[in-house]
Amino acid sequence: MRATPPAMPPAHPFDFDAWETDLGGDKPKEECGIFGVIGTADAANFVALGLHALQHRGQEAGGIVCHDPEQGFNSARRFGYVRDNFTKQSLMETLPGPLAIGHVRYSTAGSKGHTAIRDVQPFFGEFSMGGAAIAHNGNITNADALRKELIERGSIFQSSSDSECIIHLMARSLQRRVPERMMDALRRVEGAFSVVAMTRTKLIGVRDPLGVRPLVLGKIGEGWALSSETCALDIIGAEFVREVEPGEMVVIEDGEVKSLRPFQPARPRFCIFEHVYFSRPDSILNGQSVYTTRRQIGVELAREAPVEADIVCPVPDSGTPAAIGFSQESGIPYAMGIIRNQYMGRTFIEPTEQIRNMGVRLKLNVNRALIEGKRVILVDDSVVRGTTSRKIKEMILDAGAKEVHFRIASPPTAWPCFYGVDTPQREKLLAATMSEEEMRLHLAVDSLKFITLDGLYRAVGEAKGRDPNAPQYCDACFSGDYPVEPADQINKGFELKAAE
Amino acid sequence: MRATPPAMPPAHPFDFDAWETDLGGDKPKEECGIFGVIGTADAANFVALGLHALQHRGQEAGGIVCHDPEQGFNSARRFGYVRDNFTKQSLMETLPGPLAIGHVRYSTAGSKGHTAIRDVQPFFGEFSMGGAAIAHNGNITNADALRKELIERGSIFQSSSDSECIIHLMARSLQRRVPERMMDALRRVEGAFSVVAMTRTKLIGVRDPLGVRPLVLGKIGEGWALSSETCALDIIGAEFVREVEPGEMVVIEDGEVKSLRPFQPARPRFCIFEHVYFSRPDSILNGQSVYTTRRQIGVELAREAPVEADIVCPVPDSGTPAAIGFSQESGIPYAMGIIRNQYMGRTFIEPTEQIRNMGVRLKLNVNRALIEGKRVILVDDSVVRGTTSRKIKEMILDAGAKEVHFRIASPPTAWPCFYGVDTPQREKLLAATMSEEEMRLHLAVDSLKFITLDGLYRAVGEAKGRDPNAPQYCDACFSGDYPVEPADQINKGFELKAAE
Amino acid sequence: MRATPPAMPPAHPFDFDAWETDLGGDKPKEECGIFGVIGTADAANFVALGLHALQHRGQEAGGIVCHDPEQGFNSARRFGYVRDNFTKQSLMETLPGPLAIGHVRYSTAGSKGHTAIRDVQPFFGEFSMGGAAIAHNGNITNADALRKELIERGSIFQSSSDSECIIHLMARSLQRRVPERMMDALRRVEGAFSVVAMTRTKLIGVRDPLGVRPLVLGKIGEGWALSSETCALDIIGAEFVREVEPGEMVVIEDGEVKSLRPFQPARPRFCIFEHVYFSRPDSILNGQSVYTTRRQIGVELAREAPVEADIVCPVPDSGTPAAIGFSQESGIPYAMGIIRNQYMGRTFIEPTEQIRNMGVRLKLNVNRALIEGKRVILVDDSVVRGTTSRKIKEMILDAGAKEVHFRIASPPTAWPCFYGVDTPQREKLLAATMSEEEMRLHLAVDSLKFITLDGLYRAVGEAKGRDPNAPQYCDACFSGDYPVEPADQINKGFELKAAE
Amino acid sequence: MRATPPAMPPAHPFDFDAWETDLGGDKPKEECGIFGVIGTADAANFVALGLHALQHRGQEAGGIVCHDPEQGFNSARRFGYVRDNFTKQSLMETLPGPLAIGHVRYSTAGSKGHTAIRDVQPFFGEFSMGGAAIAHNGNITNADALRKELIERGSIFQSSSDSECIIHLMARSLQRRVPERMMDALRRVEGAFSVVAMTRTKLIGVRDPLGVRPLVLGKIGEGWALSSETCALDIIGAEFVREVEPGEMVVIEDGEVKSLRPFQPARPRFCIFEHVYFSRPDSILNGQSVYTTRRQIGVELAREAPVEADIVCPVPDSGTPAAIGFSQESGIPYAMGIIRNQYMGRTFIEPTEQIRNMGVRLKLNVNRALIEGKRVILVDDSVVRGTTSRKIKEMILDAGAKEVHFRIASPPTAWPCFYGVDTPQREKLLAATMSEEEMRLHLAVDSLKFITLDGLYRAVGEAKGRDPNAPQYCDACFSGDYPVEPADQINKGFELKAAE
Repeated sequence: MRATPPAMPPAHPFDFDAWETDLGGDKPKEECGIFGVIGTADAANFVALGLHALQHRGQEAGGIVCHDPEQGFNSARRFGYVRDNFTKQSLMETLPGPLAIGHVRYSTAGSKGHTAIRDVQPFFGEFSMGGAAIAHNGNITNADALRKELIERGSIFQSSSDSECIIHLMARSLQRRVPERMMDALRRVEGAFSVVAMTRTKLIGVRDPLGVRPLVLGKIGEGWALSSETCALDIIGAEFVREVEPGEMVVIEDGEVKSLRPFQPARPRFCIFEHVYFSRPDSILNGQSVYTTRRQIGVELAREAPVEADIVCPVPDSGTPAAIGFSQESGIPYAMGIIRNQYMGRTFIEPTEQIRNMGVRLKLNVNRALIEGKRVILVDDSVVRGTTSRKIKEMILDAGAKEVHFRIASPPTAWPCFYGVDTPQREKLLAATMSEEEMRLHLAVDSLKFITLDGLYRAVGEAKGRDPNAPQYCDACFSGDYPVEPADQINKGFELKAAE
Repeated sequence: MRATPPAMPPAHPFDFDAWETDLGGDKPKEECGIFGVIGTADAANFVALGLHALQHRGQEAGGIVCHDPEQGFNSARRFGYVRDNFTKQSLMETLPGPLAIGHVRYSTAGSKGHTAIRDVQPFFGEFSMGGAAIAHNGNITNADALRKELIERGSIFQSSSDSECIIHLMARSLQRRVPERMMDALRRVEGAFSVVAMTRTKLIGVRDPLGVRPLVLGKIGEGWALSSETCALDIIGAEFVREVEPGEMVVIEDGEVKSLRPFQPARPRFCIFEHVYFSRPDSILNGQSVYTTRRQIGVELAREAPVEADIVCPVPDSGTPAAIGFSQESGIPYAMGIIRNQYMGRTFIEPTEQIRNMGVRLKLNVNRALIEGKRVILVDDSVVRGTTSRKIKEMILDAGAKEVHFRIASPPTAWPCFYGVDTPQREKLLAATMSEEEMRLHLAVDSLKFITLDGLYRAVGEAKGRDPNAPQYCDACFSGDYPVEPADQINKGFELKAAE
Repeated sequence: MRATPPAMPPAHPFDFDAWETDLGGDKPKEECGIFGVIGTADAANFVALGLHALQHRGQEAGGIVCHDPEQGFNSARRFGYVRDNFTKQSLMETLPGPLAIGHVRYSTAGSKGHTAIRDVQPFFGEFSMGGAAIAHNGNITNADALRKELIERGSIFQSSSDSECIIHLMARSLQRRVPERMMDALRRVEGAFSVVAMTRTKLIGVRDPLGVRPLVLGKIGEGWALSSETCALDIIGAEFVREVEPGEMVVIEDGEVKSLRPFQPARPRFCIFEHVYFSRPDSILNGQSVYTTRRQIGVELAREAPVEADIVCPVPDSGTPAAIGFSQESGIPYAMGIIRNQYMGRTFIEPTEQIRNMGVRLKLNVNRALIEGKRVILVDDSVVRGTTSRKIKEMILDAGAKEVHFRIASPPTAWPCFYGVDTPQREKLLAATMSEEEMRLHLAVDSLKFITLDGLYRAVGEAKGRDPNAPQYCDACFSGDYPVEPADQINKGFELKAAE
Repeated sequence: MRATPPAMPPAHPFDFDAWETDLGGDKPKEECGIFGVIGTADAANFVALGLHALQHRGQEAGGIVCHDPEQGFNSARRFGYVRDNFTKQSLMETLPGPLAIGHVRYSTAGSKGHTAIRDVQPFFGEFSMGGAAIAHNGNITNADALRKELIERGSIFQSSSDSECIIHLMARSLQRRVPERMMDALRRVEGAFSVVAMTRTKLIGVRDPLGVRPLVLGKIGEGWALSSETCALDIIGAEFVREVEPGEMVVIEDGEVKSLRPFQPARPRFCIFEHVYFSRPDSILNGQSVYTTRRQIGVELAREAPVEADIVCPVPDSGTPAAIGFSQESGIPYAMGIIRNQYMGRTFIEPTEQIRNMGVRLKLNVNRALIEGKRVILVDDSVVRGTTSRKIKEMILDAGAKEVHFRIASPPTAWPCFYGVDTPQREKLLAATMSEEEMRLHLAVDSLKFITLDGLYRAVGEAKGRDPNAPQYCDACFSGDYPVEPADQINKGFELKAAE
């Protein structure tokens, strides 16, 4: 889901100057998590728990739509964490029934303008044969063109979200039943999408032909669940059955799962960054825990870029598994040289000048007594704009470290993502304009090494590394090789990588 | 504006069992007030003031849309009083520009289910040639049929409001410019409507061919204003120019007012209840203050239904002008026998059982020392279900009154309104099933007299009374003579008055 | 209760620049209402209703303390109206038991700094023989000296309220039982006070020897109630028994009312302004309704200061009864020339500049069609700083009135009150520096007449007027004759009226 | 600070049934953190940052008092996290001046009843020679007796906090200056306390003679800071100077630090549990980082209680450093087998039944793919009631672990703490009634080993272990050896350990 420049900037319930700490601002952001349940009592409660487990995929707002045979459709949308809204008896009682879907979305405050409550998914549409609700993770790369076309035909958009196109396309489909309308609509849509949808009686899941964004199927008692990640199946006690396959649509009704193939077949290109950063370490991708993959990245990194040092410290929390792997492969002791303040929220509302100047110190503190006089290897998951890395390096040196060596668990991020991840524009990406050595000088550290693209592919299980002729993953952010042409962006002036 | 049974009951920010005191619940409710300004700096501030002056027409929620050449369209919608929301610097700064429209709407909580913030007008639509916002006062009597048709064509409704039909009809119009699209749309709409609308450069006002609901034009400096009532022109210092005429569309742009006639001509039928109850006493209708008309109703009533008594007391506050007229015509002294608690809100949230049982005593108290031993004439504006009248009578008798005589400043309310007023269903209207004498016995008072329909017409300036062949006003609530067929209602089983 | 310059300005929950409309700001303000009930189930519910009826005596905040044999003392304090806080089931369930007292207090925001929730009464103290709570209406004129003395002895004050002195004096009393401690404490206190207090088993009421502030006793079933005014007995269905007498302490326990006389006898001096403005028109003072007294003031005024005119209009709402009396005595028709916006709150939070400039127009509108070309008599209750009167006059003239004659239902307010009413400093009182004719010129009206002090005394029932040797009322605000020396004020430089 | 049964249960702003997850409820809780700054611009901003860094010591509420030469004392108290309240420009602007102190306190919701805002420190008292504010970390073991005595003398308590005794004792001291009053007061106080206090010109810090709770001194530019821990000095960029010594009072004024010794000398007994659990891993105690000490506990534990296994997993987050040490000493690989949901708050408000039943699963998830088929060593910091340990064990077994071995980084907790830590009553402590083997059977794990008391002493740097004749630390929670007699508790029936 991507926010187009809104036709009419909505009045935001938080109409103030929210301010994000650098640490948060310097990471790519997954923009959504989706979850659905059918065939259990009080499905909305399970959806709430699932969304809580997917909160890392979107923290700004969440929504749930449910259906009960007697009370029909009900919904709730709220800003803030799932745990603060969707755990209250008083709210959950208004969401009855055996079928529900939900969505969490990322804050875009500060970078792209404010979000209105009406931008919060799931979106609902009433069609002539009945209603449907959908929740979308991903990004539609031809949304601008679709929106223009739909407005010309008389559709009225209520949000600034590109995901709303899907529901309008469905409303205008000549097909009668919802699954057919959805196929009709999604065939017009380009880009990356995993969708969870529902009618009065069906739970539906779809992944785009390349399967860029994840979606898994689980079994809970007699019912079924769909989730962005397996960790959300664990929390509700559901059993992980399988991934929804790239290009597959599953329609679940009366306890039966039907599998459909609405799209032209294509070679899958799953997002490799899900392995590096987005997915939770206890989720399972490709049959292996994300934690184990990240630890393995650290092992590869230690092989590719060894260095003599006294301790290996993670930049918490996302660098931790790779640091453990680096330590175990290199034999250099692992230590918590940087402590994270667990009471740190992501943003401050109307912060004082002093708070603005604190930056990373509010979130992280160096374990001075441990660092002093040591040669320190810092393992981080990625370098985007480099601002946080500089500050962390300074904190480590202030604490008396003798040497600072950065090891990064992903290749240089040189290209923006247009498939549902919020990255800075290309010109703000450090790796877009600098070589590795220029970056080392810029960060002023003793050494700086990124894992190679091949090393990363090995860590995720491709023993031979990346196949340059037919890459196994979407790695556009590292390679500039975009598996779906970003049409809207090209219209706005974005230049693809020149052919080599 | 009327709420159809919502396709999907929205989660309400006030998800609790709100409870209304009888006094409020026993009066008809105007459902909306509308206001617009063009050609002044900070138009939204003027709109906020105008809506504050129109608050009696709708207390539940309010909204403002504005346009600024540089910042485009902006909007805000809020539950609660205008004075509590649209007077704050922090909010009003987000609503810049020389052009704005606004809307206040009545609470339907308790009777028809909850209102969502997305039901709060003005509604906004982005069309292929630009955007427009509209605010509607009235009711569309063929909204169900229109809604069904629009959904079949692929429109997605976002609210449960019938007014949303207008914006979808406009979106689908084959015309290019907004005024033409609006004419196109309104020609498909049946019922009563006064509309204020805006584009980037135009302020537009329309009244239905019968002119059931009011709309007036005012001049403020170099700019113009449109308002439901003249009292809202007074508050911003605007000069009252003239009424927008029944069936007229005014389009104001670059300081010029253009008058168009999009509809087939018809004989006007202005709502006579605006004189009796809805409009504010300081507003001007037909060149005369509403206060003076109401005082004159009291005069007529004293002539039609005299009675010997010691004092004339109004049921505050709406019965006051008629009581003054009754006293001055009859020579019986006017006195404040019932005192209204000015700190009484309209509703209680989650009230205790004790509060529920208090009823009218929370709002009104009898001036015991004054009433004791007296023959009292009570003047009230209307009797709808009769519940409040009974309670007031009991309070007066408890205080030691010797006799109680009710005089009512409107004829018996025997029919529901389908033109933008919230009245109980016909079977709950006391006068639908009882004669005047039966009502007197039901209320157990010494005498009960309503003004006659002719007396009411005389008071509003029709010297010869009502013309039965061509009634000068819409008086359907008294006469059952509906000037526009209430199609949706008839489909739901409502029976028109049998021909006599 | 008066706020001394707080030792430590508390952080206010409303930490912003609240702004009051002129109309509110230009009236004296009663600072408190008190209410207590014993011997009924759920006494706190009755106290809530009583406080709702006394809301005109204090709108900023309210508090209730109650006692239940099993659950002990409980309390709640809230900013805002009684109806918005103390009507909710969820709150009232936390206030069980057959004994409760409560308090409403006026906002001093803007004039004297902010109030903290800890300034909200009742105050509670735990003594060695048990606890007690007190609620106070009035002002302690030696509070500064008492506070200083108590601090020197080691008492720690928690509020900036002078009423807190009473509870500290009680804590230090050598007496053992609460009633004796209270007598002990109140004998050290100078000024005007009506107090309602409670222990685990007793409801206590006290009035100062002069009886400046009101307090009445009522019977409800087997239980008893104490209230500032009789209108609050009406709302709970209690029967008015008698006034608590000046200098009397009533102790109610086990259904029995004991009367004690802790103070030296003195001639009573009840506040005459309660008749003119503070008390509600439906309350009974001296066996006569306040409404009737105010109407009689209008009658006296018509006799003392007749003038030829076309209509008599009240300045709503407080001038209404006197205007009715003036009309009935003079034969000049009564009319509502000024309409009050009933949706006007008292204050705006962070208002826009435009709102600030609106002043009285937000609250009042002239009934233009009625006023035009008329000679108008305006009847108001008082003139304090004169700012509102000027604005109303301008509105009336703008509407086309031919002449404007002010008639004021109280003598010129030339002296501040130090007995529990919030008046401006002497130098800001118009009548402190101008003669009646100078005021007329200042207001630029055709005539201006105040009722005489003797006329006012006649209206309240003193046929011979004021006894200059032994005035029957406290009329210090008009006469400068202070029945209790305002010691703290004199220490701060206030000069008493020179002997004549 | 300890809450006595409140004389008058205050109405809580959160008047609902808050519910804590087991994980939180099964740990001892430090009850307070304190911080003060003098001699810097905008001292309150630094205090806010310091309190943010000390948030782990108290999450329920926080307060700041400050003093400015022109604006005097100001204060703010808020429920919730520091970052949500004390980072806002609008609030911090109300807290000017170069001198400020602050306090964070733990939630006691659920266990001991609700906290009122008036229980939130710092407490302020106005004395005859000027005012003072104090913030207290610890617990007064003779508070009941002191409170009774003070009430008999006429003091009025406003909170249910035992810390309020100190300010009343100060108010009644015969000494004139605040430092002398404080010495006077603290000499009457028994128990454990670290206090930060301030007058108009002085910042004061005191530790009880045994130095049970921590307090450190830092230098920031020309100013000084006092803090519970060094990590809070780091966040404001202050330099750690030294600990305030047990029994020492420091008085800082005009840039000078004076050291006083108001108490009889005693052998220090610092709380050993600060090393194990309370203090942040990046704080420095005894010249060594707490992280390093905890890692060393893991090393000792691996030596004392080795076991064959495949992986060593911490129970996050507090067991992490010991698990690292255990792994490094034993050579068994360290792995993150349990993942913590970082979006988990501590409590749910009005949770649904389903949420109540989720327990630890809301916070923790097992990394199934990693655990399956493995022999797992789980390292946790402590076992209090054992409820969480059981649940974690079950999760690990459900995930397919072959063996589960618990290693605990503290000795069995068999006695409650009366010195400022909130522990369950003795009968609810698992180790109070069971031997280690009984606990193993109760938890149904393959092995369970606690570190010995001597092992713990070695880890904190006492090479010879605990000196049984003169223990170097307060270890009452493990040993039952209470260095200060808990007088109030003994009066309530608590039985000390029988002499051996």
